[in-house]
Amino acid sequence: MSESNQVARLDTANWPSVNALSNPLVALLVANAKQLRLGVAQSDNGATIVDAGIEHPGGLEAGRLIAEICMGGLGHVNLQTSTTFSHWPWMLSVHSNHPILSCLGSQYAGWSLAHEKFFSLGSGPGRAIAGREDLFKELGYKDQANAACLVLESDKAPPVEVIEKVSRDTGVAIENLTFILTPTRSLAGTVQIVARVLEVAMHKIHTLHFPLDHVVDGMASAPLPPPAPDFLIGMGRTNDAILFGGHAHLFVKGSDDAAAKLAKALPSSSSRDYGRPFAEVFKSVNMDFYKIDPMLFSPASVTITALESGNTFTGGKLDAALINQSFGYQA
Amino acid sequence: MSESNQVARLDTANWPSVNALSNPLVALLVANAKQLRLGVAQSDNGATIVDAGIEHPGGLEAGRLIAEICMGGLGHVNLQTSTTFSHWPWMLSVHSNHPILSCLGSQYAGWSLAHEKFFSLGSGPGRAIAGREDLFKELGYKDQANAACLVLESDKAPPVEVIEKVSRDTGVAIENLTFILTPTRSLAGTVQIVARVLEVAMHKIHTLHFPLDHVVDGMASAPLPPPAPDFLIGMGRTNDAILFGGHAHLFVKGSDDAAAKLAKALPSSSSRDYGRPFAEVFKSVNMDFYKIDPMLFSPASVTITALESGNTFTGGKLDAALINQSFGYQA
Amino acid sequence: MSESNQVARLDTANWPSVNALSNPLVALLVANAKQLRLGVAQSDNGATIVDAGIEHPGGLEAGRLIAEICMGGLGHVNLQTSTTFSHWPWMLSVHSNHPILSCLGSQYAGWSLAHEKFFSLGSGPGRAIAGREDLFKELGYKDQANAACLVLESDKAPPVEVIEKVSRDTGVAIENLTFILTPTRSLAGTVQIVARVLEVAMHKIHTLHFPLDHVVDGMASAPLPPPAPDFLIGMGRTNDAILFGGHAHLFVKGSDDAAAKLAKALPSSSSRDYGRPFAEVFKSVNMDFYKIDPMLFSPASVTITALESGNTFTGGKLDAALINQSFGYQA
Repeated sequence: MSESNQVARLDTANWPSVNALSNPLVALLVANAKQLRLGVAQSDNGATIVDAGIEHPGGLEAGRLIAEICMGGLGHVNLQTSTTFSHWPWMLSVHSNHPILSCLGSQYAGWSLAHEKFFSLGSGPGRAIAGREDLFKELGYKDQANAACLVLESDKAPPVEVIEKVSRDTGVAIENLTFILTPTRSLAGTVQIVARVLEVAMHKIHTLHFPLDHVVDGMASAPLPPPAPDFLIGMGRTNDAILFGGHAHLFVKGSDDAAAKLAKALPSSSSRDYGRPFAEVFKSVNMDFYKIDPMLFSPASVTITALESGNTFTGGKLDAALINQSFGYQA
Repeated sequence: MSESNQVARLDTANWPSVNALSNPLVALLVANAKQLRLGVAQSDNGATIVDAGIEHPGGLEAGRLIAEICMGGLGHVNLQTSTTFSHWPWMLSVHSNHPILSCLGSQYAGWSLAHEKFFSLGSGPGRAIAGREDLFKELGYKDQANAACLVLESDKAPPVEVIEKVSRDTGVAIENLTFILTPTRSLAGTVQIVARVLEVAMHKIHTLHFPLDHVVDGMASAPLPPPAPDFLIGMGRTNDAILFGGHAHLFVKGSDDAAAKLAKALPSSSSRDYGRPFAEVFKSVNMDFYKIDPMLFSPASVTITALESGNTFTGGKLDAALINQSFGYQA
Repeated sequence: MSESNQVARLDTANWPSVNALSNPLVALLVANAKQLRLGVAQSDNGATIVDAGIEHPGGLEAGRLIAEICMGGLGHVNLQTSTTFSHWPWMLSVHSNHPILSCLGSQYAGWSLAHEKFFSLGSGPGRAIAGREDLFKELGYKDQANAACLVLESDKAPPVEVIEKVSRDTGVAIENLTFILTPTRSLAGTVQIVARVLEVAMHKIHTLHFPLDHVVDGMASAPLPPPAPDFLIGMGRTNDAILFGGHAHLFVKGSDDAAAKLAKALPSSSSRDYGRPFAEVFKSVNMDFYKIDPMLFSPASVTITALESGNTFTGGKLDAALINQSFGYQA
């Protein structure tokens, strides 16, 4: 099926503004910086820089709030206990008022921001004003706002040139831009990355060319991994939390046949690169992200309910042994 | 024991107004209609009609908010993951600030609204102003407010005659009435129906003539079923989620003997109609709801703590096989 | 290691005011007293007394809100279902924006308030203004505010002399003081005591002289016990919920060796008094609290992640049989 068909019927004219919805949450985050143990500073050119785990400790709750900002004010991220993984009792559970917009239009880390040695993939509501990614052309959604926020999985503040570029591409004055920095090794980073478990499912649905307007709703969960100071290990764990520990339940329109195919194709196990901790996979391609099979990035287990028939199809499975190996369980 | 004894000591003079508490939540639901993917329209005679799953998709979060409105602003409904049912990882957990008022005085679907071919059982805070049900005479509670809301498990808007009747019976001007429509087949409908798991326990307690003023508090959970387009199947699943998947823990005053008897009588398994998926039961009585044993409507498993002794009694059990059969698990 | 070293690097100058954060929650609790089934009265000398389970029933949600007040407005306490303990399906899960301040600086029941026959250990944000405990000298934190709140696990209102003392020690006018009373036997009391599962871990960390500034974050859970009218049994159950049913995951700085030692020393099972229901232990020392090994007071199971290495260490284990025995499970 062609990509234009995939999004043809998305009712984007009626979608809300992810920046209007999330800007009050950003203001609250900054106002509560002290209690959330965040740093707030101005860049040399006047943007607000929130440090959520570089010099300042941040924490789990900071990460939860940042995840909800990253979902454009349309997401609900909870920390809860569950016996799903016996050695890792904390789970993130995620749902959204508006999953396609929230996950793909805001949360997805899709905006490539680079200058000299700085490189980061911007995520969050600011992406939807800039609309620099092909994804936005496909969605046909463009947001407008006087203030905007981006979340960067980075342990360095963006250089002024990157900030200027974001201001240019969004039309938002530099002083109204907020950049939230969550290094992979930080607690806030770990939470906000694993809180992408629903987004990762939505993105693979897009990659599979399943019609996005057929996705009515979804929920997902994944275990909270221990952060790791080594970038490769930390990145490995946050990915493995989803690839071996994530479970998404999606409610879709369309035929049973399409839902059954989706249940088979969607889980991470459908990928040729499935089976080893992510850090090993990444190392084996010499850290070249684009050499990894895009089909790998998905929750381990999926449940697909076809709303037109009421039938439910499942695929994949959780892998506790690989979670223990990746997260470093010492028996 | 007589019914007058059952409620004699309910301190209803000090009960809060479920309409005052829920009207701000209704206003918020309407203000956020776009992001919750709800339709908001005016009826021909000026009432507000919220479409939560007929022409507009609605969704799980819309259902969760509607459930909290339905509980009169006194309820807390959460979507969470749990291993309780291995193939259905999402649970609704429910508790309330004020369970008897919230569940029986507001959430119970007890107001019969009919005109020509339209029939629906109204639930939600508006019931407590009208007070048209015997239940309110027993409770001795009558609310007053300038605005009111009813939730209808319906896929048709109420005719103007029904709206007029609600206005007449409540004394609330038509333009201040809100009707929220959640078809059984919709995601929002599924959530708000299964979120009745605590209310169903309270209602059977009432049916059993256990003194309502002896019920101090309670919590309950039930798995989220996949919605089904077929009314009979959808209705079956939402009932089965409670009858075979619901667990309520109640804290009661009175003797150990009374608590032990309640633990034995309260679970759905105490009914002669227990043991088959609800859709089968309903079909076997030719869809005549009133031919079903009222003792069937209750959570599968109950835990009763007698506060005067501190002893706890249990009854019933969860039935994963029946949940899988009802929800349509494809192994 | 010396105690001065233990807190030397706590950045208390940048800690927020637990009273400023919790006073709005106290105002909300009082404003919502009717729906939370709380009593609100003035003491003879004009302080606000909130009855959360003496003459007024209170309830689970009241207890949850009081727990969040007790954590100085920095805590998140959730009621959720889990299969962790098969006969006790309700868990409290707890995390905080700022665990050391929230748990030790506010929630810990450390302020001894006595007059004639009245005795209670005050907990909550008011402690941090008075600073009467050695703990505050160690923390180097002193709060200031025009209003303050204390939570008392008591079934009697404090006498005017105690209220006057609190006013004197905090410098807060009596009419701006709120005392929230949650008897051990009440539902609200049970919730707010078990919600100390993270605090208990923090306090034992302090007792073990592990550097407090090395504790970056934490989460903990424990099952909700049935309240008991007998003080000894009720106190036993709330303690056992933590000692045999609590699980804390802490994220710490420092060496792997220190983290591994903490994982071994922290669980309740490291105590010589571990192994019997708490009520038995308490009786065996003739109700002399200070004769119990302080090492006993800790969650049953701990998970310690050393952030500098990313390695995780575990210690202790949950004990379902003892939970059933303590909570009074009738098979």
